[in-house]
Amino acid sequence: MTTIDFYFDFISPYAYLGSVEVERIAARRGWSVRWQPMLLGITMFKVMGLKAVPDTPLKGAYALHDMARFARFLGVPLDPMAKLQFNPLAAARAFVWLQIAAPERAKPFAIAVYSAHWCDGRDMGEATAVADVAAGLGIGRTALLDAIASQPVKDRLRQSVDDSIARGVFGAPTFVVGQEIFWGADRLPQLERWIETGGW
Amino acid sequence: MTTIDFYFDFISPYAYLGSVEVERIAARRGWSVRWQPMLLGITMFKVMGLKAVPDTPLKGAYALHDMARFARFLGVPLDPMAKLQFNPLAAARAFVWLQIAAPERAKPFAIAVYSAHWCDGRDMGEATAVADVAAGLGIGRTALLDAIASQPVKDRLRQSVDDSIARGVFGAPTFVVGQEIFWGADRLPQLERWIETGGW
Repeated sequence: MTTIDFYFDFISPYAYLGSVEVERIAARRGWSVRWQPMLLGITMFKVMGLKAVPDTPLKGAYALHDMARFARFLGVPLDPMAKLQFNPLAAARAFVWLQIAAPERAKPFAIAVYSAHWCDGRDMGEATAVADVAAGLGIGRTALLDAIASQPVKDRLRQSVDDSIARGVFGAPTFVVGQEIFWGADRLPQLERWIETGGW
Repeated sequence: MTTIDFYFDFISPYAYLGSVEVERIAARRGWSVRWQPMLLGITMFKVMGLKAVPDTPLKGAYALHDMARFARFLGVPLDPMAKLQFNPLAAARAFVWLQIAAPERAKPFAIAVYSAHWCDGRDMGEATAVADVAAGLGIGRTALLDAIASQPVKDRLRQSVDDSIARGVFGAPTFVVGQEIFWGADRLPQLERWIETGGW
């Protein structure tokens, strides 16, 4: 079965849009999607020397308009008032904890966090709000809050971010099939054709 | 008739790819494309505070691979060995001069410059090479070389760049229809649907 590695950050509305669209494509084609967390902040600021999109003149204003337009283009719900800047660490750590502690729950948790933040106006920068979302899936609040404060979980997320950078991933969403990297939700048609045709 | 404003910089391989694709779409639909020069260097470095893509860690390597793959996806010729960094001022000034001096020749000149640089391995950073391309279209070499050294032509290009920034254009290629801005050659399917449906 073809596996698509999907590199995401909860902070990116484009990664949220890409997460919905890549799962649709995978469902249609019988492919699987492996979600891989990365942190745009660390990669962009520290490795690439760039600033965050909302802080970039011209591009920040464009992105705000574009993300809503892109969501409508894809037919994916998106609250245009969703908070653009928040700390995704609690949610990202919870995800890597679940990858080990309850692997079958990791992806449903990520989907629920994306939806809570980008559709329902709930601030996923708050650890307690992240725990609320997890509780809705039957994941213990205390276990989650303890886990995301623990050093092994912090280390595991750091390792995931390092692995993504080592693979050449620099933005979210990024989709990787074999050695081929596609950056951007708008490149999903290219990814789909690449897998379908075996490359060109 | 629907007019698409196409903001381009000779230095951008993605703008070159976008120029071919937008003209194909326009020809198919009976729309017109108005080419508008901008300078990525001025906009990105001075206004946005970013560095050039080839100088950006991770993204630079990706872009090199991606531009060739994207060209094959579109079926547009591109020489992967074409020089990535060059000074586009001579070509851009020649373009704004032609917009006034011989408007019907401006777009064919830009297409020829793109093709010479990105397909034929000719360095369009050299004013004399730009003049050679122009001569192939029957544009006098001396007239062109004099024009691009003149203050009014320099001022006109600066005005074009200022106008693009005032319109919110920050990258190349950018496509504008009415008030709607689409950045990136990969957004042309969205632009096409936008015009077709009157927006969404």
